[in-house]
Amino acid sequence: MSDAGHTSDSWPTPPALSTRVAPLQDCLDTAVGFVCVGQAGDTDLQYLTQTTPAQPAAVVCLPTDDGLSLRYCLPTTHSLATTANVGVADNAASFSLDCDVVTYSPHTPVGSQVTRVLDDQLESAAGSGTLRVPPTIPHDAALRLQQAGYELSSTAALRRARATKTPAERDCLCAVQQVAAAGMATAEQVLATSEHNGDGLVFDGEPLSISRLSRTVNAALAEGGVDPAGNTQITLSTHHQTNAADPTTQLSAGSPIRITLSPRGPHGYHAHLTRTLTVDSDGGWERRAYIAAEAGLAAGIDHAAPGVDSTAVADAAAAEVAAYGFAIDGDAAEATATARVHGVGLSPLEPPRVGTDSQLQAGTVIAVTAGVDDPTHGTVELGTLCVVTEEGTQRLASTPQSLTPTA
Amino acid sequence: MSDAGHTSDSWPTPPALSTRVAPLQDCLDTAVGFVCVGQAGDTDLQYLTQTTPAQPAAVVCLPTDDGLSLRYCLPTTHSLATTANVGVADNAASFSLDCDVVTYSPHTPVGSQVTRVLDDQLESAAGSGTLRVPPTIPHDAALRLQQAGYELSSTAALRRARATKTPAERDCLCAVQQVAAAGMATAEQVLATSEHNGDGLVFDGEPLSISRLSRTVNAALAEGGVDPAGNTQITLSTHHQTNAADPTTQLSAGSPIRITLSPRGPHGYHAHLTRTLTVDSDGGWERRAYIAAEAGLAAGIDHAAPGVDSTAVADAAAAEVAAYGFAIDGDAAEATATARVHGVGLSPLEPPRVGTDSQLQAGTVIAVTAGVDDPTHGTVELGTLCVVTEEGTQRLASTPQSLTPTA
Repeated sequence: MSDAGHTSDSWPTPPALSTRVAPLQDCLDTAVGFVCVGQAGDTDLQYLTQTTPAQPAAVVCLPTDDGLSLRYCLPTTHSLATTANVGVADNAASFSLDCDVVTYSPHTPVGSQVTRVLDDQLESAAGSGTLRVPPTIPHDAALRLQQAGYELSSTAALRRARATKTPAERDCLCAVQQVAAAGMATAEQVLATSEHNGDGLVFDGEPLSISRLSRTVNAALAEGGVDPAGNTQITLSTHHQTNAADPTTQLSAGSPIRITLSPRGPHGYHAHLTRTLTVDSDGGWERRAYIAAEAGLAAGIDHAAPGVDSTAVADAAAAEVAAYGFAIDGDAAEATATARVHGVGLSPLEPPRVGTDSQLQAGTVIAVTAGVDDPTHGTVELGTLCVVTEEGTQRLASTPQSLTPTA
Repeated sequence: MSDAGHTSDSWPTPPALSTRVAPLQDCLDTAVGFVCVGQAGDTDLQYLTQTTPAQPAAVVCLPTDDGLSLRYCLPTTHSLATTANVGVADNAASFSLDCDVVTYSPHTPVGSQVTRVLDDQLESAAGSGTLRVPPTIPHDAALRLQQAGYELSSTAALRRARATKTPAERDCLCAVQQVAAAGMATAEQVLATSEHNGDGLVFDGEPLSISRLSRTVNAALAEGGVDPAGNTQITLSTHHQTNAADPTTQLSAGSPIRITLSPRGPHGYHAHLTRTLTVDSDGGWERRAYIAAEAGLAAGIDHAAPGVDSTAVADAAAAEVAAYGFAIDGDAAEATATARVHGVGLSPLEPPRVGTDSQLQAGTVIAVTAGVDDPTHGTVELGTLCVVTEEGTQRLASTPQSLTPTA
């Protein structure tokens, strides 16, 4: 129960309200306001309020003389709830809530409450004009707003704002990535000090299963002050079965073990780190795949720059992997280069990504992963989190790179 | 890094597809099908598929001769993704996916993909008829379905199905609750073995802050195989400040420390457990409040039965607390009884709750919490998870109850 990893209680300060809402101002134009409605855990609401709603909630954003005003509509959970529970989870308390909270009866649908707040604030202009909304606004809330007389116009302003990280957001991402690296070091240490018998790896006198290694890594992440968030993935490639992910599978020597961590920090931002480790590799295929994965990752990161499409980054990484003798888009029978690129922030997988705002911007934070997937030998992949800037793309935390785990 | 709590890799088997989709059959009637569209992490999709989508996804549910067929629409994340990544997070691999997966290009909006699947399956009936949908279906997906000729009719069938837990779901909830109890035991052990100097509690030679205790408890939860899920809340009441939740606050003797845990198991179901502990209580107020909280919790659980409204359960708990000399709905200056009741499942806070399907059914699993909130002395609350049955309401895990932590 000793402290490990990130031992300090201090975390970077999350971005100020003014930097979060500024991009919304442009989308208002002639609109009367911006409305965001979400279910429990909605990351758009989390972005705007820096809290995680435990129930359906909404933010109403209206232009004022000196910027924008935010009203955060939260249902009171229970008739008897006092200060302790207004539907905001734990992390609300950690950070100052720099917008007005409007609580309302849970008997009122959230769309009706938003209509009330709008009508109240807009006074004589109530029930008319255009509201900008994210396209995924819940249908029932959208219908209520339309019934109240507002016209809805969807906007990607919030999604775009989230895709470019402010310096404060990058600090948050960097801090979580450092704890992820410490969690990965724990995995490496366990694997490096494991013995192996005929059945597979043994740690501390007990068989080391995927589940047991996951639990140990997740405990290290939790001690470091971040939430594993269900995102710890460990897969084992054996000659019998590629990508075995049954948690009871005992890990074995000589086969690649791929570990992906994407924990969530107390401010809500995620890390992203993938390593592949092999205990007592007999060399050959895995080492060649590992060198290709390292080169592919570096090539992808080098290619990432403002204005470049994230698909082109993945393609550059895959092409470099292929240069080591692996196929691109090969059939199921041959070793194939893999490469993935996606944004990381309040969601572990967010724009820029293929299909959604795929172009990189200065300030974009992306996870880049590259490697080889082989039907016989298994999967060897490496991935990390990078920030794209005008000066180049940098990794958010340095991690040791080697196929063989060392204590 | 030793194992703690739930040391086995085995978890209860989550509910079979047939029991999950059966309640949808009734809502179909004359409708052509049921469609569920959700964002990443959507718990309705999780309920239907037993996987957590990492991106917007959908389930299309159509009647067949012998029941219902499910098609799970998932965007392929990246042009080069092979078997490893179809937008499903870790836990997909742990459980069998007993529905057909249809992957599609991430360039296609999810609503368009659902329309394609429907048109394909319905053949000559394509583009007509009524689709039942949850009322919160994303507006853009709803509009696409309507544009394709389908009429939408909202249904609460899925929400209602989720509010009543099958025996398999109760087993999942019970298993997570047991790990939560082990995590609470870790907190108790840390507090029981802490010393105190003039400034506050000291554990293992270092000041014990809220954050440090949280991290230690979360590590125990993670070692037990569950995810803290950002739901660990520790608050300290002091004579200077009620409900201090600043994570850097050093814990102190003589003041109530309230701990709420609601971790998520590998199958997605949550626990719910609240205890209040005081190191070296000088008796008096806290002990009286603690006895009232214990009695209130028991009264609430006793009152819970099929057909009873969850508000009535909260009222019964609060009335019992009040019988010990505390006010109901008191003003901010006096000690006030608190009581909360809500469903727990794939969401940590779900129906039945005030405002949404508040009536209890046989099979409902609820968190019941009762206690006292006082502006001077602080908050003393106790809460646990119970299953409502025709034979009475039972706690899902037994936990030791005492105000004073014991090792």
